[in-house]
Amino acid sequence: MTHAREMLEAYPGRVALDAATLVECIEACFDCEQSCSACADADLGEEEVSQMRRCITMCLNCSDVCATTGRILSRQTEFESAMARASLQACVEACWLCAEECEYHAREMNMEHCRVCAQSCRRCERACRDTLSTLGV
Amino acid sequence: MTHAREMLEAYPGRVALDAATLVECIEACFDCEQSCSACADADLGEEEVSQMRRCITMCLNCSDVCATTGRILSRQTEFESAMARASLQACVEACWLCAEECEYHAREMNMEHCRVCAQSCRRCERACRDTLSTLGV
Amino acid sequence: MTHAREMLEAYPGRVALDAATLVECIEACFDCEQSCSACADADLGEEEVSQMRRCITMCLNCSDVCATTGRILSRQTEFESAMARASLQACVEACWLCAEECEYHAREMNMEHCRVCAQSCRRCERACRDTLSTLGV
Amino acid sequence: MTHAREMLEAYPGRVALDAATLVECIEACFDCEQSCSACADADLGEEEVSQMRRCITMCLNCSDVCATTGRILSRQTEFESAMARASLQACVEACWLCAEECEYHAREMNMEHCRVCAQSCRRCERACRDTLSTLGV
Repeated sequence: MTHAREMLEAYPGRVALDAATLVECIEACFDCEQSCSACADADLGEEEVSQMRRCITMCLNCSDVCATTGRILSRQTEFESAMARASLQACVEACWLCAEECEYHAREMNMEHCRVCAQSCRRCERACRDTLSTLGV
Repeated sequence: MTHAREMLEAYPGRVALDAATLVECIEACFDCEQSCSACADADLGEEEVSQMRRCITMCLNCSDVCATTGRILSRQTEFESAMARASLQACVEACWLCAEECEYHAREMNMEHCRVCAQSCRRCERACRDTLSTLGV
Repeated sequence: MTHAREMLEAYPGRVALDAATLVECIEACFDCEQSCSACADADLGEEEVSQMRRCITMCLNCSDVCATTGRILSRQTEFESAMARASLQACVEACWLCAEECEYHAREMNMEHCRVCAQSCRRCERACRDTLSTLGV
Repeated sequence: MTHAREMLEAYPGRVALDAATLVECIEACFDCEQSCSACADADLGEEEVSQMRRCITMCLNCSDVCATTGRILSRQTEFESAMARASLQACVEACWLCAEECEYHAREMNMEHCRVCAQSCRRCERACRDTLSTLGV
């Protein structure tokens, strides 16, 4: 349960983007910030941690990029589409790289935390692409 | 919708805290990171922005503290209760200060975004207190 | 005084980029994270805060993007140039937008904190462009 | 080189704390955010990464806590000493835990990145304690 939709509906000004697309993207970003922090930690808890180096790094990068993108999209008062666009593009890249790596570990090593994290990354990647297309990119 | 519960259930090691309490606290932290970033921005969109200075600052502080606390709690592999405790105590303080300020604006100025943000802060404050008590503080 | 150069020199593996360019970029990112957080707050302390809305928002966005970019560049073990590139491009955008706004307030309203913040943003914008060119973009 | 001192000197209002103590603490926080992100990554690049789990986790926690504390201290307009105090106490804890762990690896395994990171953590721990004492704690 999150308050993202209620916060957007209570915004006193005009929202620059389609509200449903924006709420989904904001929720997906903060959810993915969490999943990726948790997955980096779960990777570290695996016995063969030396095989998880790339996954840990992709997760840490993705967690930070998602947090920043979620914050930028939460700021509507002086919304700047060039800023949103560049941040969303970085977020698509981060989510895609992380999902690819996590899907590999889910498939080849049957790692459940990577399977869940990949779902969260793919949801966020999709939401960012949808938001980018409403920005006219 | 978030993946916090699924991520915790997929964790390969032993979780140091009661799972339900922890999941609620992690979700509340990331939700509050978002609400507070959005409320600081909505405050900035109010006509009488000069009356919102304290609310903006409490929201920005609370957003940052919640993000950090949510990340620390998401890391279970080398969970350190002294670290969790200090971070949760800072988070209780941040949420309490922000909720008090937002409730004032909700009550006196009928600001809906402050009403929603205060709910999110009170939920997070409560979840942090619950987690602190499972830590034996 | 920072430890960025010493940290990079102590890195056990091979660094993917030119070390001097990378150190300057990492230092500039964390410095700009700080300047922009401080400038958003100083804007809020100005009497005519209603004229500072855009400056506050550009500063908050820039602070978050710089932190994320500085962290991504600090991670060399599984350095992924596509990720660095997208993050650096978002950082150039954030720094440019923030510097333009701060330079306006420095020039038109003689705001010293905006003058200093713009310097920090321009330094970071330049360092990100330099790092992008070593990445072959 | 950072702009922290210049930003504080340009602040339009009254600064709540001793300026020299505050500048050193802000600089130490952002420096330590960087050192700890870099050390977590360098740990991951070590051959015996399975022995670095605790160091990675302490570094990730410390990096996040330092960033949040540095941001809170950079906000002077509605400075709230109870918030600063709780954040500084969490930062002392994070820096102490991380320095202890890094000093162990520096001493026992001759890891240079841990030696540098521990210096950065000890500097930040000291600066936070000094700031706490000016707050009357």
